[in-house]
Amino acid sequence: MKQYVVGVDVGGTNIKLGVVNPAGKVLVRTSFATKPFASHHSHLITALAREIEASIITAGLHRRQIAGIGIGLPGLVDYEKGVVRFLPNIPGWRNVHLKSILEKKIKLPVFVDNDVKIITLAEFKFGAGRGARNFVCLTLGTGVGAGLILNGQLYRGEDNAAGELGHMPLNEHGPKCNCGGEGCFETYVGNRSLFALASQIMKKPGMTTQDMFALAKKGNKKALLFWKTAAQRIGNGLVGIVNLLNPHLIIIGGGVSNNERFLFKTIAQTIRRRAMSLQGKAFKIKRAQFKDDAGIIGAYVLVTNAQR
Amino acid sequence: MKQYVVGVDVGGTNIKLGVVNPAGKVLVRTSFATKPFASHHSHLITALAREIEASIITAGLHRRQIAGIGIGLPGLVDYEKGVVRFLPNIPGWRNVHLKSILEKKIKLPVFVDNDVKIITLAEFKFGAGRGARNFVCLTLGTGVGAGLILNGQLYRGEDNAAGELGHMPLNEHGPKCNCGGEGCFETYVGNRSLFALASQIMKKPGMTTQDMFALAKKGNKKALLFWKTAAQRIGNGLVGIVNLLNPHLIIIGGGVSNNERFLFKTIAQTIRRRAMSLQGKAFKIKRAQFKDDAGIIGAYVLVTNAQR
Repeated sequence: MKQYVVGVDVGGTNIKLGVVNPAGKVLVRTSFATKPFASHHSHLITALAREIEASIITAGLHRRQIAGIGIGLPGLVDYEKGVVRFLPNIPGWRNVHLKSILEKKIKLPVFVDNDVKIITLAEFKFGAGRGARNFVCLTLGTGVGAGLILNGQLYRGEDNAAGELGHMPLNEHGPKCNCGGEGCFETYVGNRSLFALASQIMKKPGMTTQDMFALAKKGNKKALLFWKTAAQRIGNGLVGIVNLLNPHLIIIGGGVSNNERFLFKTIAQTIRRRAMSLQGKAFKIKRAQFKDDAGIIGAYVLVTNAQR
Repeated sequence: MKQYVVGVDVGGTNIKLGVVNPAGKVLVRTSFATKPFASHHSHLITALAREIEASIITAGLHRRQIAGIGIGLPGLVDYEKGVVRFLPNIPGWRNVHLKSILEKKIKLPVFVDNDVKIITLAEFKFGAGRGARNFVCLTLGTGVGAGLILNGQLYRGEDNAAGELGHMPLNEHGPKCNCGGEGCFETYVGNRSLFALASQIMKKPGMTTQDMFALAKKGNKKALLFWKTAAQRIGNGLVGIVNLLNPHLIIIGGGVSNNERFLFKTIAQTIRRRAMSLQGKAFKIKRAQFKDDAGIIGAYVLVTNAQR
């Protein structure tokens, strides 16, 4: 029975890889640094093929038990064609036909997708979004993105580029964004902006959200103010999507979501205060259930959905 | 064969009613003022039953040829249960079980929905959205709303309240909105705001968008500036949804969309300048194909979709 999947989560720093069983459990996992392979995609693909083969053996499985390989990448991926269009943080990856190249090497079905979409599938099938028909899965980090489950399925948009919540403007005129826009949500709540806010509030350069979390736990008033401000910004950025998409669930993941107790209540209050009464009444905020394994587990859902 | 539908479009001013054939053509139409019936929903329902019966006869049809009645209303409608929850501009309509009451009177299947959603269905099946898998159908008027076709189907959200594009904030701090929010898109591009802008630019009270259209056609520079400003506001408000939902099509309807030649080019330019490069590249703006008949034609789609 082909019922296992090898999931691969390609990040800017590390590549994580694991074998997933039908219950969404990761049986074996391995990881290696992205950098040595980053500039030449063919090196990375060769390494992936080797590690995939190795992980199947380590898991005590045979190739015939593998339904396929699912790969998430941080950037623009053509899911239908299996082509990696562009990865902002990994050079050397433009229009790479990852699916067909790797399938030739490994003789197993390969599916590729954007990493945030894959994380969203993990939460939908096995995590905080189980049973929900409509939800937004927000990831907060250096970049800010989202996956959308609408009418019970992943919404991809026309170019598989839907979900760019980080690039919905929060203001008509605001900080310039890398995307070419202005006043984007990410320029207010991305890590760079939150680190700058932390340093400004603490009047000390180099402050991080981790620092602010540690200080807040000790009751530091400035750190608590920092989290309140961050949460208000996040809430303001979610009002529009709550009114537009009328979900009852927003799942928040990414590093900053670890600080749930300093964030979620204020985010919810901000949304309730500003959103339309019906839309603002019924929704819940939940923390993403999966952290490091999300991309690997989601790859299982990607592969099995594609083969249904 | 049950292949005709009676469509009813309940507006704050008039109620329009027509018999629609399977090609989406309106065979007979009638309309009457809403006001005499507005305060007592039972009066309106009695009038509807009478007019529906009359229109079937006028169309030369028999009841057995009618698949059902579709009714659009301007407000919050529980599509599943057939209950009108609340109509901001028509008093006396709170939690009215319109579907079951009217079905008892008229002995034909009745389906009710929010009017913007029904207009969107008309454009999807017979109009500017034919063949599109994902699009946003924006209606500009006193209120600003939208219908969303996503993954080839109408997206309703959890409470059938999705599509409130008019209440996505354009700025964190901005004009107070009737919805309880602040800086909502509608406070910038709703008729009230555009009329105020017109009066301000012309330095003359009581100016309307119709006035500005007439002046712009004559080449009046202030009127052209008015339309440019309005178009930039509309474009700014659409950037977020273009990045979030990655549609290739935005359909614009409502009174203001009649001024297509002074609006659409600047709207498109504004979106292209501010949206992410991929999302901003491929989309098109089209004018809604149906005007007065949109609600009646969409009712046909509502009824036949429900019975598929």
